[in-house]
Amino acid sequence: MAGGVVLVQGASRGLGLYFCKHILSARKEARVIATCRSPQAASALQALYRLYPQNLTILQLDATREAEIREAAEAVAKEHGQLDLLINSGAILHPSARGETSLQEVLAEDLSITLATNSIGPLVMAKHFAPLLLKGSGAFGHQFADQAKQHRAILVNLTAKVGSIGDNVLGGWYSYRMSKAALNMATKNLSIELGRGKTKVVCVSLHPGTVNTDLSKPYHRNIHKDKLFTPECSVNFLMNIIENLDMGKTGKFFAWDGSTLPW
Amino acid sequence: MAGGVVLVQGASRGLGLYFCKHILSARKEARVIATCRSPQAASALQALYRLYPQNLTILQLDATREAEIREAAEAVAKEHGQLDLLINSGAILHPSARGETSLQEVLAEDLSITLATNSIGPLVMAKHFAPLLLKGSGAFGHQFADQAKQHRAILVNLTAKVGSIGDNVLGGWYSYRMSKAALNMATKNLSIELGRGKTKVVCVSLHPGTVNTDLSKPYHRNIHKDKLFTPECSVNFLMNIIENLDMGKTGKFFAWDGSTLPW
Repeated sequence: MAGGVVLVQGASRGLGLYFCKHILSARKEARVIATCRSPQAASALQALYRLYPQNLTILQLDATREAEIREAAEAVAKEHGQLDLLINSGAILHPSARGETSLQEVLAEDLSITLATNSIGPLVMAKHFAPLLLKGSGAFGHQFADQAKQHRAILVNLTAKVGSIGDNVLGGWYSYRMSKAALNMATKNLSIELGRGKTKVVCVSLHPGTVNTDLSKPYHRNIHKDKLFTPECSVNFLMNIIENLDMGKTGKFFAWDGSTLPW
Repeated sequence: MAGGVVLVQGASRGLGLYFCKHILSARKEARVIATCRSPQAASALQALYRLYPQNLTILQLDATREAEIREAAEAVAKEHGQLDLLINSGAILHPSARGETSLQEVLAEDLSITLATNSIGPLVMAKHFAPLLLKGSGAFGHQFADQAKQHRAILVNLTAKVGSIGDNVLGGWYSYRMSKAALNMATKNLSIELGRGKTKVVCVSLHPGTVNTDLSKPYHRNIHKDKLFTPECSVNFLMNIIENLDMGKTGKFFAWDGSTLPW
């Protein structure tokens, strides 16, 4: 596997950080742009930069601020002129770090913040980086022999199984569930718009499993150890899926094991 | 059909107004609370009040302001002590009144406003009126003979077929589609939480068809006349569905013709 230009949004920790690590390690010529809100405070990402100073660029970006996204896209356009893979990884469970366990805990303000971070941010990322994705080299995924069915790039929105309406049997976590359902709709819309031109982008939602990250930390004692993935493990599964994506799989919602989830 | 206490949110025009008209006309003893942002400007609703001064109450309520929702719920609690049917009808297509036709038209600010009105507002309505719904008399819908399966009230979120992720083949309308997908998730969550106690509330999402209202007005010339319902017609279909709801149908997404829509 050769190079490719990748942008990982929300790369200071959790899955975003491990996507950067995985790609830098697996693809010696890859250029990875890692974005996060506070690069100065992102010590793990800074450590990664010291290992791969030629291949990793850290960009300051708060995905709830459209102006910052636009500036980041301009910087990437200037430096690379294209993008092969965009991973929207940044998300919050809830401003309090705990999902609502009942309707009476729902607050309009919390919903608003969660939707801004988890739904609006990733879509506005897609808006500003779509022109670069449409100029991608097709470095990631599986390419059909038929040129008309080939893709230029891949856009991944990390959502979650709890964002599946059809799969929802437990309820609760109103803000997070609603934000991920909205993002799944964004994925579907993007797959349609970025799939009908001469140049195409594969767009999918991915469920990473239950992963040992800060987001899930408050719930670890409820999860059987066998069901809790390390971030490395989850990213390994997800990169396997990404490397096998093609235009036949665009607009879908895949779990870490490759199964298709209901909307 | 006897009485019942009904609240219609977003009742100044469109489907909300016609839900009020239909129920006041069909149920002589019903008490209808019609909420809207600007009662003074709601001339059609004021005209309806002059026809049914004993049965209709108009309440000022902006569903994007949680404090106003709380006050309205307190007023209804004081006056009626219960609620049999809550219809969340208020929605916008987009702040510009035109849905986005491409990704480049998406603006974070427009998404935020649309989600606040169409997704957050209805859920916060549910939060504050749920205690009254749980005290309902079961005046609407079909009741099972088995008391354990009976419902106290019905909560309706008006969403739309374009809010179905699975049904989406055209794309576009990012803000509206995402807001309705998020609201569908809210419906599912509400059906779980309000369906597991001793007292239960049926919660559904309903698709009204393409209706001749201000919301759809900019698109009428693209719609075949046979496919464009009058609000009376749509409300008639939807009330037929509502009158046949029971706990076996909670948590589902129905179209005006009774068919189940995919999420």
